[in-house]
Amino acid sequence: MEFTAELIADFLGGEVVGDKAARVTTISKIESGEPGTLAFLANPKYEHYIYDTQATIVLVGRDFAPQRPVSATLIRVDDAYGAFARILELYHSMKPAKSGVSPQAFISSTVTVGKDAYIGEFAVIGENVTIGDNAKIYPQVYVGDNVVIGEGVTLYAGVKIYEECVLGDHVTIHSGAVIGADGFGFAPQPDGSYRKIPQVGNVVIEDWVEIGANTCVDRATMGSTIIHKGVKLDDLVLIAHNVQIGENTVFSAQVGVAGSTKIGSRCMFGGQVGVAGHISVADGTQVASQSGIAQSVKEENQRLMGSPAYAASAYQRSSFVFRDLPAMSKRLAALEKELERLRAETE
Amino acid sequence: MEFTAELIADFLGGEVVGDKAARVTTISKIESGEPGTLAFLANPKYEHYIYDTQATIVLVGRDFAPQRPVSATLIRVDDAYGAFARILELYHSMKPAKSGVSPQAFISSTVTVGKDAYIGEFAVIGENVTIGDNAKIYPQVYVGDNVVIGEGVTLYAGVKIYEECVLGDHVTIHSGAVIGADGFGFAPQPDGSYRKIPQVGNVVIEDWVEIGANTCVDRATMGSTIIHKGVKLDDLVLIAHNVQIGENTVFSAQVGVAGSTKIGSRCMFGGQVGVAGHISVADGTQVASQSGIAQSVKEENQRLMGSPAYAASAYQRSSFVFRDLPAMSKRLAALEKELERLRAETE
Amino acid sequence: MEFTAELIADFLGGEVVGDKAARVTTISKIESGEPGTLAFLANPKYEHYIYDTQATIVLVGRDFAPQRPVSATLIRVDDAYGAFARILELYHSMKPAKSGVSPQAFISSTVTVGKDAYIGEFAVIGENVTIGDNAKIYPQVYVGDNVVIGEGVTLYAGVKIYEECVLGDHVTIHSGAVIGADGFGFAPQPDGSYRKIPQVGNVVIEDWVEIGANTCVDRATMGSTIIHKGVKLDDLVLIAHNVQIGENTVFSAQVGVAGSTKIGSRCMFGGQVGVAGHISVADGTQVASQSGIAQSVKEENQRLMGSPAYAASAYQRSSFVFRDLPAMSKRLAALEKELERLRAETE
Repeated sequence: MEFTAELIADFLGGEVVGDKAARVTTISKIESGEPGTLAFLANPKYEHYIYDTQATIVLVGRDFAPQRPVSATLIRVDDAYGAFARILELYHSMKPAKSGVSPQAFISSTVTVGKDAYIGEFAVIGENVTIGDNAKIYPQVYVGDNVVIGEGVTLYAGVKIYEECVLGDHVTIHSGAVIGADGFGFAPQPDGSYRKIPQVGNVVIEDWVEIGANTCVDRATMGSTIIHKGVKLDDLVLIAHNVQIGENTVFSAQVGVAGSTKIGSRCMFGGQVGVAGHISVADGTQVASQSGIAQSVKEENQRLMGSPAYAASAYQRSSFVFRDLPAMSKRLAALEKELERLRAETE
Repeated sequence: MEFTAELIADFLGGEVVGDKAARVTTISKIESGEPGTLAFLANPKYEHYIYDTQATIVLVGRDFAPQRPVSATLIRVDDAYGAFARILELYHSMKPAKSGVSPQAFISSTVTVGKDAYIGEFAVIGENVTIGDNAKIYPQVYVGDNVVIGEGVTLYAGVKIYEECVLGDHVTIHSGAVIGADGFGFAPQPDGSYRKIPQVGNVVIEDWVEIGANTCVDRATMGSTIIHKGVKLDDLVLIAHNVQIGENTVFSAQVGVAGSTKIGSRCMFGGQVGVAGHISVADGTQVASQSGIAQSVKEENQRLMGSPAYAASAYQRSSFVFRDLPAMSKRLAALEKELERLRAETE
Repeated sequence: MEFTAELIADFLGGEVVGDKAARVTTISKIESGEPGTLAFLANPKYEHYIYDTQATIVLVGRDFAPQRPVSATLIRVDDAYGAFARILELYHSMKPAKSGVSPQAFISSTVTVGKDAYIGEFAVIGENVTIGDNAKIYPQVYVGDNVVIGEGVTLYAGVKIYEECVLGDHVTIHSGAVIGADGFGFAPQPDGSYRKIPQVGNVVIEDWVEIGANTCVDRATMGSTIIHKGVKLDDLVLIAHNVQIGENTVFSAQVGVAGSTKIGSRCMFGGQVGVAGHISVADGTQVASQSGIAQSVKEENQRLMGSPAYAASAYQRSSFVFRDLPAMSKRLAALEKELERLRAETE
């Protein structure tokens, strides 16, 4: 694939400043641009790179005014970052797409496979499964009985979906993720042992959800664990049984949410956050990495920090004083001594 | 499957209040009950749901006295929750069970397969493996050479068991779990690099253990990493080399235990707890989520919190004062100033 | 395999004290030694075990002087621990090695397979993959298109390598690890949803890296996520897109590093450490378990603790005072009261 500056400018509705015939074959970051690549400049912090970059073409904003000469050909666009993302999508879409059903997959006789679906080698598709049009099931995926898979779903190599789960359209799940394993439910017995509580519910994943590598979403004891539309979960996340995650909520890696908790929409959780079971967290809650949510959060759009977490600004103030604790302890002891002396004097 | 209230009451030794011929086909939670379902009421906090639930039948305690009319048919039993768990087990046991050995599994010629065992597609069973009666080995499972698998074991799709490991009877392991990968042992070399210490031990998992999805139990350097009888590990847990976990201990998700540590029996750890290596933790220790156990715990049945963890009640008191630190800091400064003024006056 | 004390002493350049014809078939720890095993004593803390051990042969230092009679045959060597590690390696290397290419693997026609490589059952090797000499690809591994795998690489059962990634020589990756899944990159849209940013980079893993079970190393948005030579990652670690990890750095289990962060060489991170995105951490940094690195660390060889982390010694001092906070709070209130009284008196 090779493109000229002119062609790219046409595609993006931009304007070429420099050599319209300049050609690129791939993309790069501006700080490590090489000849034959296309880069972008959106953050003014990175502006200094544009004067030295080896990239052949750089996307810039309409209002970018170079302070010094630039050797790269520029393409002026309304939104340099957005335009670059479109180029990334274009570049990505030109990778040869997987297609066809491998004769080495195991597909039960009762499966319905949609148009143009791909099923790779050694995948196992259980009884009564429905697979939507254009779905891509990579090698070694396991899809249990009665699972429903929507249109345009991508399951990367080795994903495991237990029986009865339901995936909407355009869901993407990365390798090693496990959807629908048993929730962690055991009833304590008089002799100290535990008796398993059968987990007879399922997992429902709505449209446009993306789930990272080795993430686990457990099935409900009864009913459904629900990941609502547009949710994005990073790698190694744990979603326990009967949890609900609201629309467009985003979790960084290694977050864990305990059973029956309900997370609102538009939340953003940093990495390694933990959330207790049987609580609810309001829409738009932002949680700093490694924090722990121990109680329900009722007010929307708060920023929380700490374990147990509370208002981030207040936590940070306390955290700042924490560093001074040894000195405060000495000052307190000195005050006590001084006061003792003073009292002795005045009495 | 369809059951009448009368039949269910007979099965549970309960008493029908209402329509003995009422019929249900599945189960539900009382707060989201629909016609044709069976629900239960055990926690008085949920009592208000019983007056509006659409569930056709509700299991209640012998002493339940409705405050208002209830449209559902009730079945009075000694222990509504326990009775419901029995119904769940019954319901679960009626799912068609997997059976037979797939011709698309790879089974070494030296394997011994027990009676009525199931081995799914693309499973790999290594040399000299023994598989007990009624074991269920789902598709894409890997069982390394010389592994012993007891009776009634269930290994869900994609479980990996490295060579030489031993699983007792009725062990359940969920998808993506890895049993017997090398312990993390490397000897630092003078040039700053590390030399691998071969991990020649194994993992021993005793009867009735359940292990969650994507959990890792590493093999011992020498000897065995041991998960004792009845232990329950949730998803994404890490058990390092040479660790021992005592009987009926329960770990929530994302817990990590470092090498050679010995955890007692009947412990309960919340999610994301970390435990240092080469220590021991007494029987019955309870650890709050996200806490870190840095030293051996000698006294049994304590409740611990914090990182490093100590008595939960004391930790919570300090945690409470922590929020007040900025104010305390100001009060301390004010006192110093005031005392200075007072001293100036009195001298 | 059976070896005499004499043969072992010859191999190690050691000296037998006792029965040169004593025979062992396996190895053990001195505290749980059984007849027919070889153990070692390096740490003086364990010396008391040598007087009772049932091990047949024990490796000891040249200068070991027993305080009481020892029934085991001793072999005196310069470095008992190092010598034992050599015996472990010897023992380990005598396990029958896997070899050959399984007819049940799926290998694209454009793959180059090196000399004496092993490819197990139901492995999938994509287009244009290169596999080095002596590589061992266990069953159910997935290797995406255009991946390069060096000499002597070991990929255990079920490892997943996405397309375009590059593995150097002697890399070892344990079961369930996922290399090259998409980085977690989404652009927020005006309607609150997120648009995926295609991740068109790859992962580069240099020579002698070892990666634990179920660890995830995400591909770069552009360019490469790089794990430099000699790095050791334990199980369940998360390395996000565009991260770089310096030579011979070691991460314990469940560590997470957010996107675009650069970790120096010779670092050692305890378990469950988190590191923020877009920062850099100096060479030789040591981080205590469960700590969180929120900002760049510029000074080398520091020991850090806390979340957010700072100098471990200072953190520990504050942590010590933290336990005393409830008492400090009371003392502060008492001082205020006392000062009030004193002021009333003196005015």
